[in-house]
Amino acid sequence: MRRKKKVIDDGIARATERRGIVIVLTGNGKGKSSSGFGMVARALGHDMRIAVVQFIKGAYATGEEAFFQRFPENVDFNVMGDGFTWDTQDRDKDIATVRRAWNKALSFLGDSDVDLVLLDELNIVLQLGYLPTEEVLKALETRPPMQHVVITGRGAPDPLIEAADTVTEMRDIKHAYRQGVMAQKGVEL
Amino acid sequence: MRRKKKVIDDGIARATERRGIVIVLTGNGKGKSSSGFGMVARALGHDMRIAVVQFIKGAYATGEEAFFQRFPENVDFNVMGDGFTWDTQDRDKDIATVRRAWNKALSFLGDSDVDLVLLDELNIVLQLGYLPTEEVLKALETRPPMQHVVITGRGAPDPLIEAADTVTEMRDIKHAYRQGVMAQKGVEL
Repeated sequence: MRRKKKVIDDGIARATERRGIVIVLTGNGKGKSSSGFGMVARALGHDMRIAVVQFIKGAYATGEEAFFQRFPENVDFNVMGDGFTWDTQDRDKDIATVRRAWNKALSFLGDSDVDLVLLDELNIVLQLGYLPTEEVLKALETRPPMQHVVITGRGAPDPLIEAADTVTEMRDIKHAYRQGVMAQKGVEL
Repeated sequence: MRRKKKVIDDGIARATERRGIVIVLTGNGKGKSSSGFGMVARALGHDMRIAVVQFIKGAYATGEEAFFQRFPENVDFNVMGDGFTWDTQDRDKDIATVRRAWNKALSFLGDSDVDLVLLDELNIVLQLGYLPTEEVLKALETRPPMQHVVITGRGAPDPLIEAADTVTEMRDIKHAYRQGVMAQKGVEL
């Protein structure tokens, strides 16, 4: 274990570059969005400026929305996917909704005063083909160099994984709902 | 995709039980602790009471600590692993430190006023054999029935995975430090 740690430490010691990074959180397991929101909390601890765009709105208000809306000077929180869910019958309407959300995201990706941009559930939108991945890649490439971007959602397309700095796949080993337990306030909602 | 969604929806519809759940976030990828802290933020959005015990202290103050210490009425935040890291030379001292942290954790696991307990990096402690897993399992079994517990860290032992309700393995697909980028404030620190 000490040798393994040395290899990691050496890698970290060689890591001397400071720049904004792109983090992709994908896979079927629980924890992608909550991880993104944990980074928002971290960034708030450093008094950074944060923008959140949620591409898919759930059926009810969530704890994270209620909480982060309390800090309007630091967090610009945008729930854009009004009515958009991944089983809608109206593809054109959904694409228009996605486009509005993406335009909002673009305004943050062009603003060097924004330190961290969380694009929650964007991967699903890309997987469905509701927004071309190339547009996202181009915006990431041309964003302010110190800006961090976190992109969540299952099904991250390969070119996005290729372009990202850090990628975690969250594997669903087991989930409480399969044992008959409802989604629980605080941890899932 | 619609059929897949129906299978999931049917599962969720059948999930009618309300109780506290145990969530284990493990694996080598980035996002375990930040996911736990995202759930803390969610729980704060619902005005719940939260206890955090960090078993491993980093070299510097973290954003999440700075941030969540701002809400002492809701969050009891405990950084216990003073000086403890996984390459220490003094195993006895580390075990004593772990024991102090675990006693703190036990006080929360016995308190039905605490809605969510985050045991950050506990898995590593178990993997190192610094605390018997059976003690943790027993405390989880006898905790207040509505209390949620989130346990993070690589190397979760199998009996804990067995006992948990929801388990995600975070797979490290790629990490910025291997491209020479330092750990960045806000997203990692």
